[in-house]
Amino acid sequence: MSDLKSFASDNNSGAHPAVMEAVVRVNTGHLKSYGDDELSIHTDEVFKEFFGSQARIHYVTTGTAANVLGLRSVTHTYNSVLCAEQAHINNDECGAPEAFGGIKLVPIPSPDGKLTPGMIAPYLGHIGFVHASQPKVISITQPTEVGKLYTLKEIEDLVEFAHDRDLLVHMDGARLANACAALDCSFFDMTTALDVDFISFGGTKNGCLMGEAVIFLNPDIGQGFPYLRKQAMQLVSKMRFVSAQLEAYLKDDLWLKNARNANAMAKRLAEKAGAIDGVTIKGTVDCNSLFAHIPPEATEILLKKYYFYVWNEHDQTVRWMTSWATTEAMVDEFVEDLRKAMKAVS
Amino acid sequence: MSDLKSFASDNNSGAHPAVMEAVVRVNTGHLKSYGDDELSIHTDEVFKEFFGSQARIHYVTTGTAANVLGLRSVTHTYNSVLCAEQAHINNDECGAPEAFGGIKLVPIPSPDGKLTPGMIAPYLGHIGFVHASQPKVISITQPTEVGKLYTLKEIEDLVEFAHDRDLLVHMDGARLANACAALDCSFFDMTTALDVDFISFGGTKNGCLMGEAVIFLNPDIGQGFPYLRKQAMQLVSKMRFVSAQLEAYLKDDLWLKNARNANAMAKRLAEKAGAIDGVTIKGTVDCNSLFAHIPPEATEILLKKYYFYVWNEHDQTVRWMTSWATTEAMVDEFVEDLRKAMKAVS
Amino acid sequence: MSDLKSFASDNNSGAHPAVMEAVVRVNTGHLKSYGDDELSIHTDEVFKEFFGSQARIHYVTTGTAANVLGLRSVTHTYNSVLCAEQAHINNDECGAPEAFGGIKLVPIPSPDGKLTPGMIAPYLGHIGFVHASQPKVISITQPTEVGKLYTLKEIEDLVEFAHDRDLLVHMDGARLANACAALDCSFFDMTTALDVDFISFGGTKNGCLMGEAVIFLNPDIGQGFPYLRKQAMQLVSKMRFVSAQLEAYLKDDLWLKNARNANAMAKRLAEKAGAIDGVTIKGTVDCNSLFAHIPPEATEILLKKYYFYVWNEHDQTVRWMTSWATTEAMVDEFVEDLRKAMKAVS
Amino acid sequence: MSDLKSFASDNNSGAHPAVMEAVVRVNTGHLKSYGDDELSIHTDEVFKEFFGSQARIHYVTTGTAANVLGLRSVTHTYNSVLCAEQAHINNDECGAPEAFGGIKLVPIPSPDGKLTPGMIAPYLGHIGFVHASQPKVISITQPTEVGKLYTLKEIEDLVEFAHDRDLLVHMDGARLANACAALDCSFFDMTTALDVDFISFGGTKNGCLMGEAVIFLNPDIGQGFPYLRKQAMQLVSKMRFVSAQLEAYLKDDLWLKNARNANAMAKRLAEKAGAIDGVTIKGTVDCNSLFAHIPPEATEILLKKYYFYVWNEHDQTVRWMTSWATTEAMVDEFVEDLRKAMKAVS
Repeated sequence: MSDLKSFASDNNSGAHPAVMEAVVRVNTGHLKSYGDDELSIHTDEVFKEFFGSQARIHYVTTGTAANVLGLRSVTHTYNSVLCAEQAHINNDECGAPEAFGGIKLVPIPSPDGKLTPGMIAPYLGHIGFVHASQPKVISITQPTEVGKLYTLKEIEDLVEFAHDRDLLVHMDGARLANACAALDCSFFDMTTALDVDFISFGGTKNGCLMGEAVIFLNPDIGQGFPYLRKQAMQLVSKMRFVSAQLEAYLKDDLWLKNARNANAMAKRLAEKAGAIDGVTIKGTVDCNSLFAHIPPEATEILLKKYYFYVWNEHDQTVRWMTSWATTEAMVDEFVEDLRKAMKAVS
Repeated sequence: MSDLKSFASDNNSGAHPAVMEAVVRVNTGHLKSYGDDELSIHTDEVFKEFFGSQARIHYVTTGTAANVLGLRSVTHTYNSVLCAEQAHINNDECGAPEAFGGIKLVPIPSPDGKLTPGMIAPYLGHIGFVHASQPKVISITQPTEVGKLYTLKEIEDLVEFAHDRDLLVHMDGARLANACAALDCSFFDMTTALDVDFISFGGTKNGCLMGEAVIFLNPDIGQGFPYLRKQAMQLVSKMRFVSAQLEAYLKDDLWLKNARNANAMAKRLAEKAGAIDGVTIKGTVDCNSLFAHIPPEATEILLKKYYFYVWNEHDQTVRWMTSWATTEAMVDEFVEDLRKAMKAVS
Repeated sequence: MSDLKSFASDNNSGAHPAVMEAVVRVNTGHLKSYGDDELSIHTDEVFKEFFGSQARIHYVTTGTAANVLGLRSVTHTYNSVLCAEQAHINNDECGAPEAFGGIKLVPIPSPDGKLTPGMIAPYLGHIGFVHASQPKVISITQPTEVGKLYTLKEIEDLVEFAHDRDLLVHMDGARLANACAALDCSFFDMTTALDVDFISFGGTKNGCLMGEAVIFLNPDIGQGFPYLRKQAMQLVSKMRFVSAQLEAYLKDDLWLKNARNANAMAKRLAEKAGAIDGVTIKGTVDCNSLFAHIPPEATEILLKKYYFYVWNEHDQTVRWMTSWATTEAMVDEFVEDLRKAMKAVS
Repeated sequence: MSDLKSFASDNNSGAHPAVMEAVVRVNTGHLKSYGDDELSIHTDEVFKEFFGSQARIHYVTTGTAANVLGLRSVTHTYNSVLCAEQAHINNDECGAPEAFGGIKLVPIPSPDGKLTPGMIAPYLGHIGFVHASQPKVISITQPTEVGKLYTLKEIEDLVEFAHDRDLLVHMDGARLANACAALDCSFFDMTTALDVDFISFGGTKNGCLMGEAVIFLNPDIGQGFPYLRKQAMQLVSKMRFVSAQLEAYLKDDLWLKNARNANAMAKRLAEKAGAIDGVTIKGTVDCNSLFAHIPPEATEILLKKYYFYVWNEHDQTVRWMTSWATTEAMVDEFVEDLRKAMKAVS
């Protein structure tokens, strides 16, 4: 099978060897199914070391499942979830929150996918008014879908704003590791310490095969989740093969090393590509994605060899994304090819 | 990690080495995600060799997902699905068909989980009557939840009965390989050749890590399935890790060898255990599960060392299940321990 | 418009003149909408006189809405509702509980639509088992769909059985008035005094135009109902036209007089028809429906002039139903025609 | 019961005497239920005189039901419905389209609740992209929630734009009569002649008790609606009481006379109130609602005697709404009180 030269998404990468090795290692014979095996129980304990002892962890196989089931488990159908217009739950889940969660999303315009109390406040009217969905959750993505970071202070302020209004805070952390790597803090610092209520924890993009989790930090919510997960078709029988991934992912700072590499490669790409005449990198590069303006003719040339997304045809923006598996050599080769393409079309 | 001595379920087994090897082998670098990779596309072709060129194959991660999404994709919420009272969709999916599919199940009493036209006919009234759910699908499980087999002729008759009434036939084939092994026929013989409309194809129990599929044989149904799968949180990003399993599973008759072993071990266990005084094996052993009457005191002794289910406390029935990974030595050791337990309590 | 000679259903009747008069009387000008008008608030108080001061009353327009929304408001999608196989929620609501409530129904065989603790007990296994829907509500119909009555003692026993197991009891009272009239007891005696948790209260069949209510007697359940009713498309804007009906219905014992008439007419019909050679009335006549065996040829003759249902073609049973509007003359004319039809076919 | 001095909503009015008289007149004895009565069948024919012979008409009891069930009957859960941010379906139905229809709404910013092809086009990307909800319906409200009108040409252009892209056009016509009265055209001119696909037809606000309908003009859609309506708890048993209202409403131009009065009273109020110092009427008054800036202190005084909504506290806007039942005397009295209030606070 031909290896793809991809800067399309971090989910184009494979699994980290240490994760794969753990999956192989756990294939030892008969074990209880559905998460009642020793390994899955132990992995829960490992998670608690990172998120605190009150954390409750439930494994699922996709990020969409983590988002939708987490949100559904804390809402009535007459509640609403406030999110940025760019949110994955709003744009990239084919209507799953609405169809499978009965959830009313309230998308809020934002320049970079980040929300502030000031942006949210105007959407909080009609409390107790029976004709209007009742706000229950503020869902933020860290880093956002366009690669921007909330500071810890910004998260703290949002949580305080939310809790003052009896709202919960959900963090879509499909790339939580990249955020922690970029802000040089722990998972605990970014979530439990800030009183975030529940998290979609992503492992897949940063080195797992398919390993995600819903983590409840607030002890008062999500009680029925185990039934909901089963009902939502997300309780895999041979659970060991999911928990093995996540245990390996959390071991020896693998999650951090992987995320640091992805972030560093994005920075490297931004610096080197940004230095080429006619290439403009949009904004800062906080994590492992970057957005660039290049002429569509150059894009066309590059797409013959590489795989990445044209983000916006109108303003000629492309998205490049790096992963745990991106190497300096890959970046440098890509930059070289970009340079040639730009020359060819100038 | 301690290996469990399990006769509880075939999903207590791990993955077959050849399947695991395929998963490791495909971990080679960047590939397109969400099933657009070469391997996933090729695996589709492999499936078509088994099910016919008109087959459309969609991978999911759990059997519940295969059942619920397959059924949902062919029904309106005002349709009903007729199934045996014992059906997995009726008892073992925590209400998923109802909650996530909006499906009305009509459970039909059956002695062994098998349905006949005669059993179904009384439930087909009220066609066109707006107060009643309109029958749309007959769902059968092959082998049934209590290990019984439909003959090919019985399936053929059911399909004819169904199609004469504009009903579709769904086959829950979580253990389809075991059925084919037992009846000595191919997947094609059991499904496509008999005009079955769509299938839940199981790989997990018979040697995969987590690999299931919905297969549409009828070209007129299930058109929107790809959107539905995404929406139902079942589109895994690194799809190669699912398709690799299923490709390996279908290669070199692995599915058949695994199923034959599971079936043979069940037969061996039935013969040897049934020869012990005071142990009664209920009915014939068609595939890889068997049900036995033993005194509850003997069950108690065995459960200290082995893991299996007490099926019915009232009539003192236990279920023992074998898998691709069950060996003759395991069976013989279990029989020996059973013999001792029976002696101890007699 | 030609008046139909109907013994088909009590919902073939119109509205009682006193109810209609109330609707006309309340059409006096501008009032607050959505139930915030004085009349609706007052009607709530009237209901509390009948059901106790802790009762919470919510009006809806159909019996299906009362059943589905009441049940939904007290269940999670992973809960199940146990009911008799004959239950209206199971057979006559086109799958609404499943599709609009996400509810798993567990239909239990019963000879006459009545449930007993003994019938229910075998369906209460798997508590805490994540693969199985978790029982939450026992739903009984009083009188049942085939016209049979629970005694007060039977209801009391069921409630005790339910509450001992943390289950709620729902009473589908589409014809609650007929039951009270037959048992010579009050609404309070039949519900609040017996600790029934919530009720679908029917007014339509017994003299209203369209007036039903969900009544919560248990103060701990159904808190979000007002939002749910709005979301479920059941919050009518000009609510006064519903509450006026129900206020009139409860006034001056109208509900009781109407129900007594319906019941008395059914008894009259049973006695007179049962005396005709070849006509067999099945069982006792508890309320306002009766089931009779007559030859299909006689049915054919009668259906030219009258409207009623052939209940079961196989055993030649027909259902005759009387209402608040059925008169002695109507019954006697029907009996006379039945006599002629029987003679013609003998 | 005290008559409310209401300019809050047209649903604060009662029923027109001619409508009420029809309801009383149809209360004549036994009739078939669930819409199989002669009157309901005849009312269908009356509707066809207005909307064309291919129209299919289904009665429901609330506008939310008309909207949600109409939309649901033509969409899969993976479809989206595009609407203005101000749309009733987006703001005023407590999440019903999402929860009971599984529908993804895509709210589009608009200054006055009107949509244009240019506003919609940017939201039509990702066709065939499995991660994104697939656009299926453009829903417009005529007149809009803030009282603005689409011209016939604007509707025609939207329909053409939609049909060119395989999209359907839904018209929320809760106040369709007011729009026709304002534009001096027939229902046919505004809908069937312009190829609108389906309509929520409102009768309640303009003189009925509770009478709404879903009307399909496109013969290829909404086939399963009768089952869906039953399942959605909207099939009332004594349907005659709904169809009688709508037949009367359509007779002798009652709908038109009522709407003309409502519109005229709003214009009168706008002119007279707008002439008072310090009162500003916002924009033009197209139908029967108007928005005015007045000082909050004046609002406070008026609210002691009258009932109306403060639309926006921030910019001190109030909404005044007139109905078929609003008289010149009511308007003049209100204007006089407004004048006094303004004087008191100046």
